[in-house]
Amino acid sequence: MRATTIHAPHDIRIEDVPDPRIQRPGDAVVRVMRACICGSDLWAYRGEAAREPGQRIGHEFLGMVMETGPEVTGLKPGELVLAPFMWSDGVCDYCVDGLTTSCEHGGFWGAPGSDGGQGEAVRVPFADATLVRIPAELAPDTPYGDSRLLDAVLTLSDVMGTGHHAALGAGVRPGATVAVVGDGAVGLCAVLAAKRLGAERIIALGRHEARTAIARKFGATDVVAERGEAAIAAVRELTRGQGAHAVIEAVGTEQSMRTALGITRPGGAVGYVGVPHGSGSGLDLRLMFDNNIAVRGGVAPVRTYIPELLPDVLDGTIDPSPVFDMTVDLDGVPDGYRAMDDRTALKVLIKP
Amino acid sequence: MRATTIHAPHDIRIEDVPDPRIQRPGDAVVRVMRACICGSDLWAYRGEAAREPGQRIGHEFLGMVMETGPEVTGLKPGELVLAPFMWSDGVCDYCVDGLTTSCEHGGFWGAPGSDGGQGEAVRVPFADATLVRIPAELAPDTPYGDSRLLDAVLTLSDVMGTGHHAALGAGVRPGATVAVVGDGAVGLCAVLAAKRLGAERIIALGRHEARTAIARKFGATDVVAERGEAAIAAVRELTRGQGAHAVIEAVGTEQSMRTALGITRPGGAVGYVGVPHGSGSGLDLRLMFDNNIAVRGGVAPVRTYIPELLPDVLDGTIDPSPVFDMTVDLDGVPDGYRAMDDRTALKVLIKP
Repeated sequence: MRATTIHAPHDIRIEDVPDPRIQRPGDAVVRVMRACICGSDLWAYRGEAAREPGQRIGHEFLGMVMETGPEVTGLKPGELVLAPFMWSDGVCDYCVDGLTTSCEHGGFWGAPGSDGGQGEAVRVPFADATLVRIPAELAPDTPYGDSRLLDAVLTLSDVMGTGHHAALGAGVRPGATVAVVGDGAVGLCAVLAAKRLGAERIIALGRHEARTAIARKFGATDVVAERGEAAIAAVRELTRGQGAHAVIEAVGTEQSMRTALGITRPGGAVGYVGVPHGSGSGLDLRLMFDNNIAVRGGVAPVRTYIPELLPDVLDGTIDPSPVFDMTVDLDGVPDGYRAMDDRTALKVLIKP
Repeated sequence: MRATTIHAPHDIRIEDVPDPRIQRPGDAVVRVMRACICGSDLWAYRGEAAREPGQRIGHEFLGMVMETGPEVTGLKPGELVLAPFMWSDGVCDYCVDGLTTSCEHGGFWGAPGSDGGQGEAVRVPFADATLVRIPAELAPDTPYGDSRLLDAVLTLSDVMGTGHHAALGAGVRPGATVAVVGDGAVGLCAVLAAKRLGAERIIALGRHEARTAIARKFGATDVVAERGEAAIAAVRELTRGQGAHAVIEAVGTEQSMRTALGITRPGGAVGYVGVPHGSGSGLDLRLMFDNNIAVRGGVAPVRTYIPELLPDVLDGTIDPSPVFDMTVDLDGVPDGYRAMDDRTALKVLIKP
């Protein structure tokens, strides 16, 4: 089959690789119908996260079950399934707690020895626990096929679930004033998640008009285009000097964390999901201490959130699909990386 | 009257100062019956927190109302009252939320222009909101006077309320496994708070036998005497390799924060109340991110906790008074500072 590989910074290739096959009794093989490129893939693309030459890449996908191992009981070939961005066994202490990202036997798609999501097919460990069935009617080649809805479901693989995790970490509650630092796809999904959780006021920080337009569509009531100290002043101006009770940090840099803490109301919380790339330096513990600001977040256990979020996507309560603003086939994946790296694309959908 | 002043590092004096008098209509003057020395006073004593020469000091006290301003409606001269370690107006947005330490008109005892708790009397701003009445029968010179109970009530001025805040920040719940970093008076009170909140297992980290004995009395089920990496290994050994779900950091140094994060179970939280003196450097955001460990705490709004904790102290459900292991009169205060600085005393009670 063909799959995306990364050989060096900025060297993304589409190559022939061995077809996936069942290796353990709990495995399934899934033919990928939709995948996408994540902002966190760019850390590898830019050389800021190490990869072995030729390593697979991509961790967001959905598709059709092609084959199952003898111990898979909940899935059958032909069914449509959504994969979260990590696999998990479903039975360890952490999975039982819902923290599937700390699974004792979990792992990342694209890790050495495993398939990545940006390819024609993927071997899925612990298939019963990892995959979530989605309605077969969504398949675009069926009479009721709904490609847009399929795209929306794909966001639950990572970006929408991660936005939801950030909103929970920030303590978004009905009536809350929320601020979102970061106008990438996760930040935008966090706006949507905050709206879904009942936030009354949502301040989106961002300066790219195409993105802030999506933020408004997703529920942002205010947009702040400033950065740094000016952004902090602008948010304080909007909140009677107090700041927002729930602040979402969806970037991962020192500046974004400083801004997030600077706009959090005393007693509030920063929910952070930006993979830390310098953001640790932005943690001012004295500021946190004096103002009782909590910092809570991390790698999102999206597998746990899918059962809660999927019905809302299927019935149209939320539609995160506008985060995709470019679509490519497998051969177009290198162009997709370039476009996201240049910020000419927000998030790239892949139809292999 | 006479009061404690600080003139320079290690230069604590007892001096004659002007008698406090009503300055604003909401003030009260309180004659101090009990005060104490806080671990955080030692930061000033050691010169690690700046003070003006001659500044008052001490922020924990209880006593008798001597005089009230014309707008004080809830208190009368002769009543016994407990003061939290900050005053607050009771009506601003933060006070209404219970975050009295962020009060828009709040302040610290001993700040320039205000009285400190380690003296014969204190002018109390916003007396109705700040002070909490305690039973008059507790006074030692009454037929039912109970000096030990009065000492126990005094801990609600700071140390016990701060331990409770740490336990809440760490997310202590019934059945939880809790670890407490720090065997000072706050750490010990945090053990008691965790026990009160239903923790099943409480691991106290400390190496001073007199203190760990109090920890066991307060509910610690395990004591770990190691430090640093060895302490982390020991706690992991006790928790099937996972760490404790709720970890309390009650020191404020880089090492204590590193230890706290190192013994927190993925998905858990560090509740921190140690005034940050280097602990920011111990915040490893990548470790927090990968394991979804929250960090939540700060300066404790003890005023808010007094109504909840006071009944439990009065009926004997909790007795934090063993944290006091040395008693002095006003003239003995400099000795008290020396003893706490030397760690020959855990916490010094003052009977002016």
